[in-house]
Amino acid sequence: MAAIDEVFREVAAGAVNYGVVPVENSTEGVINHTLDNFMDSSVHICGEVELRIHHHLLVSDITKTENITRIYSHAQSLAQCRKWLDSHFPKAERVAVSSNAEAAKRIQSEWNSAAIAGDMAAELYGLTKRSEKIEDMPDNSTRFLIIGTQPVSASGDDKTSIIVAVSNKPGALYNLLAPFHSNGIDLTRVETRPSRNGAWSYVFFIDFVGHADEQKVSSVLSEIADQAADVRVLGSYPRAVM
Amino acid sequence: MAAIDEVFREVAAGAVNYGVVPVENSTEGVINHTLDNFMDSSVHICGEVELRIHHHLLVSDITKTENITRIYSHAQSLAQCRKWLDSHFPKAERVAVSSNAEAAKRIQSEWNSAAIAGDMAAELYGLTKRSEKIEDMPDNSTRFLIIGTQPVSASGDDKTSIIVAVSNKPGALYNLLAPFHSNGIDLTRVETRPSRNGAWSYVFFIDFVGHADEQKVSSVLSEIADQAADVRVLGSYPRAVM
Repeated sequence: MAAIDEVFREVAAGAVNYGVVPVENSTEGVINHTLDNFMDSSVHICGEVELRIHHHLLVSDITKTENITRIYSHAQSLAQCRKWLDSHFPKAERVAVSSNAEAAKRIQSEWNSAAIAGDMAAELYGLTKRSEKIEDMPDNSTRFLIIGTQPVSASGDDKTSIIVAVSNKPGALYNLLAPFHSNGIDLTRVETRPSRNGAWSYVFFIDFVGHADEQKVSSVLSEIADQAADVRVLGSYPRAVM
Repeated sequence: MAAIDEVFREVAAGAVNYGVVPVENSTEGVINHTLDNFMDSSVHICGEVELRIHHHLLVSDITKTENITRIYSHAQSLAQCRKWLDSHFPKAERVAVSSNAEAAKRIQSEWNSAAIAGDMAAELYGLTKRSEKIEDMPDNSTRFLIIGTQPVSASGDDKTSIIVAVSNKPGALYNLLAPFHSNGIDLTRVETRPSRNGAWSYVFFIDFVGHADEQKVSSVLSEIADQAADVRVLGSYPRAVM
């Protein structure tokens, strides 16, 4: 797929059984566009996986390094290689496109452009790696979510992701976290995003350890539902080893 | 200045007394690059201001709408106008540059490009507004911070911003928020960013009501300092009316 939105659309439409979307990078943080897609979609999260991400500077065979004036990639990858680009190509234009695959595809026949993408894109589009492993942080990793339409049953070591909309009043976040704490449930991630209901209102994306089928988890969820304007379980899924 | 980094640099170097940097947009959320700059800089936050943001599609006089194949702007502005661009210029390339001013400057002599920027850039660079108010959300607003080198004394209605690094263990965020709650201090924003110390470790950016000189606030801060790996007060400043 050319973009994250399309992965959500294809899964929701039933054209494919599963999709894989990036959700968080260790250097650049959360991928907002993926979180925002969950607000508008009814897909379930079925799993997660973490991968080390290496970025390469890809060019077509005809491209001389000194001629590179434009570099294409997804905005996230451009950000993950920002320092490398600042020092090696300070004057080249950075063009944010919808995916790294799209960037690689686009430069196939260009003589003055490069793309930042991974090994698979280099192979798929017959490009040369002009510079390898150009990511700024040596342990650059991305967490991906596997999305589908069916819930997944408990594996014994699971995580659950929820979206919660709370009214914008003092103590809202603290009160939201309290039931998790009192029930001994570990939060692994709390992320805030603007809601679609007017300026300066927010929704929280919360990941925690446990499966929605567990007694303890379902009682916390109903406790939260009592105080929140809206709660939606995005899915419970086997925890990735990180 | 051409980019956020430069504003931080000029203020820290004493070349200017104050700088203004965007920190959060009501449509697109937090401006990560600004938060990350605070991690590496010793500047103080001296104030905040919220502004309604209108984006326009700017072109030079020689540009015909049907010839526009590239649109320049800051990545944030491109994101704030994403739906408009998808419907009006689905095929045009979106080029993320360091600022909207830079985008406007760049298209002055181009016949096939447009920039997304505001009124001031249009005036400054003599550009024509081909389409006005193209932001996706009608109440699109941005909160800016005023940064300087001197702390600001209490005004009676203040906010304080801090950065806290905690060790990555269960309950870390909850335990961090507890002292605020028990002292009746309202949090206005909690943001998580990757720390620079290895993959999957985080720092929290916390905004709350009160001035660091207040007894109640300073006791909360010392309580937090006991449990956190690192706490830094970015500044206390008069609260903006929002």
